[in-house]
Formats: sequence, C-alpha cells, structure tokens
Amino acid sequence: MTQTDPRPSRAAEPVFLEEVRQLVTEPMHDALDRLDEHTRRLCGYHLGLWDADGRPGTGSGKGIRPALALLSARAAGASAERGVPAAVACELVHNFSLVHDDVMDGDLERRHQPTVWARFGTSSAILAGDALLALANEVLAEAPTATAGWAIRCLNATTRRLIAGQQADLAFEDRDDVGLEECQAMAGDKTGALLGCAASLGAVLVDAPSALALGLAEYGQHLGLAFQIVDDLLGIWGASARTGKPVWSDLRSQKKSLPVVAALTSDTAAGRRFRALYCGEAALTEDRLEEAATLVEEAGGRRWAERRVAEESAAAMEIVAALGLPTPVRRDLTDLTQLLIERDC
Amino acid sequence: MTQTDPRPSRAAEPVFLEEVRQLVTEPMHDALDRLDEHTRRLCGYHLGLWDADGRPGTGSGKGIRPALALLSARAAGASAERGVPAAVACELVHNFSLVHDDVMDGDLERRHQPTVWARFGTSSAILAGDALLALANEVLAEAPTATAGWAIRCLNATTRRLIAGQQADLAFEDRDDVGLEECQAMAGDKTGALLGCAASLGAVLVDAPSALALGLAEYGQHLGLAFQIVDDLLGIWGASARTGKPVWSDLRSQKKSLPVVAALTSDTAAGRRFRALYCGEAALTEDRLEEAATLVEEAGGRRWAERRVAEESAAAMEIVAALGLPTPVRRDLTDLTQLLIERDC
Repeated sequence: MTQTDPRPSRAAEPVFLEEVRQLVTEPMHDALDRLDEHTRRLCGYHLGLWDADGRPGTGSGKGIRPALALLSARAAGASAERGVPAAVACELVHNFSLVHDDVMDGDLERRHQPTVWARFGTSSAILAGDALLALANEVLAEAPTATAGWAIRCLNATTRRLIAGQQADLAFEDRDDVGLEECQAMAGDKTGALLGCAASLGAVLVDAPSALALGLAEYGQHLGLAFQIVDDLLGIWGASARTGKPVWSDLRSQKKSLPVVAALTSDTAAGRRFRALYCGEAALTEDRLEEAATLVEEAGGRRWAERRVAEESAAAMEIVAALGLPTPVRRDLTDLTQLLIERDC
Repeated sequence: MTQTDPRPSRAAEPVFLEEVRQLVTEPMHDALDRLDEHTRRLCGYHLGLWDADGRPGTGSGKGIRPALALLSARAAGASAERGVPAAVACELVHNFSLVHDDVMDGDLERRHQPTVWARFGTSSAILAGDALLALANEVLAEAPTATAGWAIRCLNATTRRLIAGQQADLAFEDRDDVGLEECQAMAGDKTGALLGCAASLGAVLVDAPSALALGLAEYGQHLGLAFQIVDDLLGIWGASARTGKPVWSDLRSQKKSLPVVAALTSDTAAGRRFRALYCGEAALTEDRLEEAATLVEEAGGRRWAERRVAEESAAAMEIVAALGLPTPVRRDLTDLTQLLIERDC
C-alpha cells in the first residue's frame, strides 16, 4: 500500500522525509491490520490514513520520529530499512500518547479533524491508544535482531517518561507556583524522551556502539526540548490555519506552557499583571486572550523561549558534529533539526 | 519486601498460591518503583499494595495469572523462579485492563475500595493503566533468555485480544441482538486470552517444546472461558460481601453477560418477558432487579452457564491429563482449576 502525500509542500522539507514515508507507511498499515475492525478503524482515523467513513485520509503527522529512527540506523552505518521497526514503534508510541492526551485534555480537534474521543467516544479512544502501545511493542519484538530486547527496554522506559510528563502537566494545571526548572523537566519527559528514543532506537536495533547510541539519544533529547518550546510558542502565537488549533489555544486552556511559566516567574510588572489575569479564580474570558498573549511577551516569556530554542538546537547540532557521522546522515540530521525549529505548524 | 496475606483463608486454596505471592510480590514492587511517584502511588493503590494514603494495603488480587505463569515454567521442567518475569508481566497486563475497564464501565468500586478513577480522577487512571502496560513489556524484555522476544509477541497479541473483547463488550451494550456465539467469543478475548497467555508464557520463556506451550495455552483458554462464566454467574447471584460488588450488579448495569444472553436468546416465555424488561427504553429500576434475576434463571440462562462451566473446565482438565506433566505440576494445575471454578468471589 502506498500513500500520496496530501500535505502542502514546504520549501524547507528535506527530500528524505518523503523516503521515510515510503518506508514506514506500509508497515504502519500492516501493524493496524492486526487489530479488531473497530479499533483498527479508530487508529487509522487518528493517523490520518482514512477519514471517519473509511475514505482515504488527509495524511498522517509530520513523521519526525520515524525519520529520526531511520537516520539513527543510517548513522550506525546500516541501511534505513533496518531501522523500520524502530521507526514504526516510535510513531505508534507517539500516537498512543496523542490519543490518550486528547482524552485527558478534552481537546476536540487535531489536524483540523475531531479527535478520536470527540468522534468515537472516550472508551473507544482509550482502547485505541492502548492498542497503539501494544502494537509498538509487538512490532519491535518482531525485529529480526538480537538487540530487539534492548530496544523494547528503551521504548518502555521512554513510555514511562511520557506518562510522568503528562502527570506533571496535569498537576501543573492546578498549581500557580510552577517553576521554570520543573516545567522544562516536564517538557523533557513529554517530548524530549521520545525524540531521544527515536534518534537512538534505530542504532540500538542494528547493534551500534553504545557511545553512538547514547550520543544520538542526547541529540534527540535536546532537539525534543527545542521542538516542544517551538510547539509552545506556536500554541500562543501560531497561525491557526497552519497549526490546526485555534489562535491562543494554549492560553484559552490556561496551560502552563514554557513561555507562560517564564512570564509567570519573570518578576516583572507585566509578569505580575499576567499572573493576576491568568491565575485568578475566574476563567480567562475570550476578550482577554489577546491581552494575556501581549503580557507574556512583555514579561519576556517569548524572548526566553526563543533563546532556549536556540540553545537547545545548538546543543543538538554540536553533538551531531562531534559524532563523526557519514556526511549524508549529518546533512539529513541538520536539515531535520532546522525544519523542526523553523516550522510554523 | 514481603507481604503478609491479608485475605480470609479459604479451605480450598492450594498451598502453592502462597508460594506464588512470595515469588511475585517483590518483583511487582520493583517494577512499580520505576514509575514517577504519582503514577506509582496509583498503581500500588489499585494493586492493593497500599491504601490511598500510602498505608499498607488490603492485599492484591487472586494471583491467578502469576500462578499459571509459574506453573507453566514448572510444566516445562524449569524452576518456578524462571517464570517470574512472565508472571509479573501477565499480572501487570491484567491490572492495566482492569484500571482502564473501570474508567470505561464507570465502575465505582473494586475489592471494596473506590476504583482508581473514582479516587484519583479519570486522567490519572488512564495514565496508571498505560504505565502498567509499559511495565509489563519492560519486565518481560529484561528476562534473561533468548525467547523473551517471543514472549513479548505473545503478550501483545493477547493485549490486542483484550482490547477487541472490551470493544465488543462495549458495543454489545447498545445492541439487543447479541448472539450467544459472539458473546462467548468476546469472553474468550476478554478473559480466555490472558489466562491462555499466562498458562503458556512461563513455558515460552524457558524455551519449552512448542507442543507443550500450545497445549498449555489451550488449557488456559478453556479455563479462562469457564472462569469468565463463573464471574458472570457471580455478577448476578454472587454474595455481595464476598464479591465486593453490589448484588445483581451486572443486571443493574444491563450488561450482556453470558447468562443474560443465554436467557435473551432462549426462545422461552421467561426469556421473552426478560427481554421486555431488560431491553426496553427505560432503565431497569431497582425493584425489578430480583424479578430480572428470576427470569434469567427461568429462561435457562443460569443452567446454560453452569453447563458451559462444566464443559470448559472438563476440556481444560483433559488437556492437562494429555500433556504428560510431572505429577506435582499436574496436581497444582488441577487444584487451581477447581479453585477457580468453585470460587464464590
């Protein structure tokens, strides 16, 4: 089964992302085909493989984690193909977490479509998420290599971090004293961990030297933190038509995202005004959202976040430079890093 | 860490169930200790290791799946110890499914305690279930044996069946035309699959001959179906003080359990009266529950279920007899089978 790419072309998108889709799409379909019909339908709907009525879908996510997993196999001198089980497993774990997070966060839309729970109910969405996690482990256990067991240990240690990050994220909702350090730790768990896992899992599968696997994991974690902060910036200032989320969506839901926490902890006049607006008893009314966004910016939350993106992506690129990778792999990792940092959705 | 058994002693409980608890309790604690503090607390609360305030708990479940997993290692001529990763993994998967099922079914109590979602909220309960599934895979991947990969494949294929069974169970709620065959298939997925997995997974881990592993899996699936039908009988006629559920609880929630479906499809006068009562637009009022239970019985639902329990347990015991197992293992499997069929909770 092949899939034409339905997304608008982006000038910066590296060529190899299309190759990633070519390699991963069929194994993703094969994995889903193991599920009972209803669960399969929901999982494929979430992944954008088909719509709610089973017609060809509008395409899946960006494919960042599969791309990292295939690059990590190539970084170890193996073919991209040998990283495919890692790529599929990471993409499945990522989507497991999205499906469940949407339930927990009550999010109604993702990629301009109703979320799984909003369309098919909470129970079915919980089961669809469960199924994606089970499939991830099954696919990885089938990888024809002696290191599959290690890969599975990495994947589930990562899943524990995703869970810890989401628990922290939920706990932050009820707290007004969230610090910038714990907030970054949460982002490291929620996003950095899986990007680090993806960036090393292909290498683990092909039995790369541990220094390489660990270096790639560290690269992925820096990239992941940068990626999350970009996400947080887009969650406040992103163009709705590109992100698929309403403008100021993260402020509307009073999320403790990183720019928000940077503003809340800024010890500035704007930060204090923002705190009064954001952490009061009353819900933030629609007409105060723009004011809140402006206050985050005046309190330095946006500037802080942009600086952290620059720092984390620089740290990521330093590691890539130090690993002595083959030139094409290094180029592709560089392109991917830039794409993720400079994205607008 | 050891745990004294806080449950009332049952005359029929085989000695080896206490040995199972001795072997499995510490590895279960070790697994949970990997989780973030909040998720760990919830998981241990669900497992009865501690109460909601962290004080020593009232004990965990019956330990059937761990017992089967350890017996299956012994059936293959290995020590029970070598089956421990399989035992822990099966118990974790079982509890993953319980925590999520309680959310989906809206059940407020389990083992005389508030369910995880009722006590800690839906989001935390979803994450706790996720964590138990991840831990199951992690523990199994760490088993020091070349067949761990196969064991993980079995475990996740089983998880897919649990999911399929729960999807079917939920779908049945909205249907009045559920057939007895599809209802038994659902029970096979929801309960038979994991008991079959547990009964073979220890053998898989110690690299037993495939005929033995497959025979044990088949034994476990028959046992599981018998076990589920006993559960369905207890869900209608069980003594509340023993089961920890309100009397007639499955009728109150208008569940399509097997005795219910047997009555609905019985083509008897009582069955038709039961259908009118059970499948009408209106919810079943409290004062009609006793009448409903009587009608299920008059329609032959109870008798059918009891006959099926006898058939499935006989099939299970026939396989045990045919496998040529060492006498102590055969005796323990026989005792366990009887315990599960004759239980009152």
